[in-house]
Amino acid sequence: MPAVAVTRGRLTGLHEIVDVGRDRARGGYSRHVWQPAEIELRAWFVERAERLGLGVEHDRNGNIWAWWGAPGDDAVVVGSHLDSVPGGGEYDGPLGVVSALDAIALLQSTGFTPGRPCAVVVFAEEEGSRFGVACLGSRLMTGAIDPERAGALADADADGVRFAEAAEANGIAARHLGRDDAALGRIGLFLELHVEQGRGLIGLDSPVAVASSILAHGRWRIDIAGEANHAGATRMGDRRDPMVAAARGIVAVRDAAAARGDDRATVGRIHALPGGTNVIPSAVTTWLDARSARDDDTRDLVAEITARVGAAAAAEGCSVTVVEESWSGAVHFDPVLRDGLAARLGGIPALPTGAGHDAGILAAHVPTAMLFVRNPSGVSHSPEEHATLDDAVAGVVALEHVLRGLL
Amino acid sequence: MPAVAVTRGRLTGLHEIVDVGRDRARGGYSRHVWQPAEIELRAWFVERAERLGLGVEHDRNGNIWAWWGAPGDDAVVVGSHLDSVPGGGEYDGPLGVVSALDAIALLQSTGFTPGRPCAVVVFAEEEGSRFGVACLGSRLMTGAIDPERAGALADADADGVRFAEAAEANGIAARHLGRDDAALGRIGLFLELHVEQGRGLIGLDSPVAVASSILAHGRWRIDIAGEANHAGATRMGDRRDPMVAAARGIVAVRDAAAARGDDRATVGRIHALPGGTNVIPSAVTTWLDARSARDDDTRDLVAEITARVGAAAAAEGCSVTVVEESWSGAVHFDPVLRDGLAARLGGIPALPTGAGHDAGILAAHVPTAMLFVRNPSGVSHSPEEHATLDDAVAGVVALEHVLRGLL
Repeated sequence: MPAVAVTRGRLTGLHEIVDVGRDRARGGYSRHVWQPAEIELRAWFVERAERLGLGVEHDRNGNIWAWWGAPGDDAVVVGSHLDSVPGGGEYDGPLGVVSALDAIALLQSTGFTPGRPCAVVVFAEEEGSRFGVACLGSRLMTGAIDPERAGALADADADGVRFAEAAEANGIAARHLGRDDAALGRIGLFLELHVEQGRGLIGLDSPVAVASSILAHGRWRIDIAGEANHAGATRMGDRRDPMVAAARGIVAVRDAAAARGDDRATVGRIHALPGGTNVIPSAVTTWLDARSARDDDTRDLVAEITARVGAAAAAEGCSVTVVEESWSGAVHFDPVLRDGLAARLGGIPALPTGAGHDAGILAAHVPTAMLFVRNPSGVSHSPEEHATLDDAVAGVVALEHVLRGLL
Repeated sequence: MPAVAVTRGRLTGLHEIVDVGRDRARGGYSRHVWQPAEIELRAWFVERAERLGLGVEHDRNGNIWAWWGAPGDDAVVVGSHLDSVPGGGEYDGPLGVVSALDAIALLQSTGFTPGRPCAVVVFAEEEGSRFGVACLGSRLMTGAIDPERAGALADADADGVRFAEAAEANGIAARHLGRDDAALGRIGLFLELHVEQGRGLIGLDSPVAVASSILAHGRWRIDIAGEANHAGATRMGDRRDPMVAAARGIVAVRDAAAARGDDRATVGRIHALPGGTNVIPSAVTTWLDARSARDDDTRDLVAEITARVGAAAAAEGCSVTVVEESWSGAVHFDPVLRDGLAARLGGIPALPTGAGHDAGILAAHVPTAMLFVRNPSGVSHSPEEHATLDDAVAGVVALEHVLRGLL
């Protein structure tokens, strides 16, 4: 068996990008779509794919395709993403991209020639860290989001650039954003390898698992409006303080999710306006991430949270609006494909995940599967996220073995 | 009686700066020390003072002095500040500066010549909106803050510029920051006119009041550290979420202050790290503003809040540190001066205030008084802050009358 390329304790591909997009303030990496670090990663991907003799195409939604041989129908497509959450880890996304390229390199080194079309894909804005909607590249390609709405999404930072403007600035015609039947129609099967993002593989005696399902999940923006006033001159009884209402809301988010078995609900982002220490805010916005095994249960959870936040705001004399920014129904991966891969890889375990993926979007359209690589920290979306070199190599070898069977 | 200069429904001075530092995102004004809008206001002040024949001096702590006649000891000094909170109102600060210049213009127009030195002063960074410590210019001049500590204060925004660097970039030698006995020694008496910041003058049938006292107050930074993790993949029971601890802390801030009579406690500023919607934060920082009539009561309030936040964090598996960023003991203004001014102005009321002022810092060193101008909105640190033109003119006339008696 030929060796997987390694440099200084990492897959060589990960080593090549180890300094791209480091976030000194937060730790880890901030690689947001079409910002300089992510643009550098795109160029790196193209260069690395071309080194393997792959033919690179940019689709009309910001995704990059690297074809092994001629593009064609019924292709085996394998890939992931290169963008990150703010202050994210090294593996979430890039591990899947590097492993796909390395698996092809392994196949090439044994003289294998594919019997059907094969491509590596990099999806744009998987994390939704810049424009607020996760899996934006795959959602656009599959028509899961209206292209007008996607184009109007604003950069989360104060500059407020729209997705359509960022796309245009990077060679994507905004008027051509949206469902891409040509690109979608060529996919016979989609495979995504990804670092596991919880404690799912710890103690299971296997470095790799197949995915069984993804929790239903979505994002809701909660805007609470009160009355700005002076922090010293305003009596407690005269206040309409949206920060107090937001705080009671965050406590309700925790309590509601914790009371519902294995549901998850999180507020990780908050913004106070105007944001002065000596100023009662005029408005506070929080973003809710909520997930549950079933679509209905997720909707119920969000309805309960909305009601509780509404009551907290009313008690404070504040108003609330809740806007759904994204929604992804529960995904159950193709059971035949899942069981076939698990068997081919020696009976590896099947795991559910709470994390969303482009594979979850694709699963509504084509047979789709995921491979998870063990994460000994049990932590993700954090610099603590990890995969050992041995496990990362095991992931590449597993992917190569699967591709050898499928191609 | 000569007329106060008025343009389009405003004091002319306020009209001249009505477009400087407007904040389109927050509404109102953002004029932070040594940022472009505040630098423009400084230049405007110098130009306007020179038009009155005043002699301008820049002291070594970033404050500006405009002398009517020769500088000298036992001077009557009148002034306020030009900086604002983020998204602040039009009157907080500039009303006092404009009124001081207008009062001198009125005196000049009647041929009055002062019998003792007189100056208008503009103090730097009164709001503490950029570097976190309020009344920084007056604190430095009086030695109320260690100049090393002041110089090391970092800009609240991500760029992290230090106060010393900003000072140097604006012609202030950082090594000369600190107690300025020459400047302080010349002040015989300090007067500050300011828009009232609560509902204190509403219904009192007087457009102007004198200040009786300022609540003890301070600012504390509360850093809560937990564990960053994936919002979807991490079970509720496996979390150490500093956002939940911070939210319980904000509720405790409200409850503790509301239970203590007329105490005030506020969280107007919050920062989550890394700040992604699908990321449990690694750390959340909130800033506490707490005030009470007596120093001891304020300390007690903060101790209670600290204990409650500590318990909330411990229950969440998070750690907390609380850092005092500034402290100002309760101020009781010179009673002889206060009663003399009130009598000279026809028996106007005396009011306590919850808002801090440079006058509160000066009061520990020289006889000090304040005049408040009615605020019909009862709102401050907000674009809603207001003073009618009639009341603003009444303020200028009151200040002219007081200066005529003192000079």
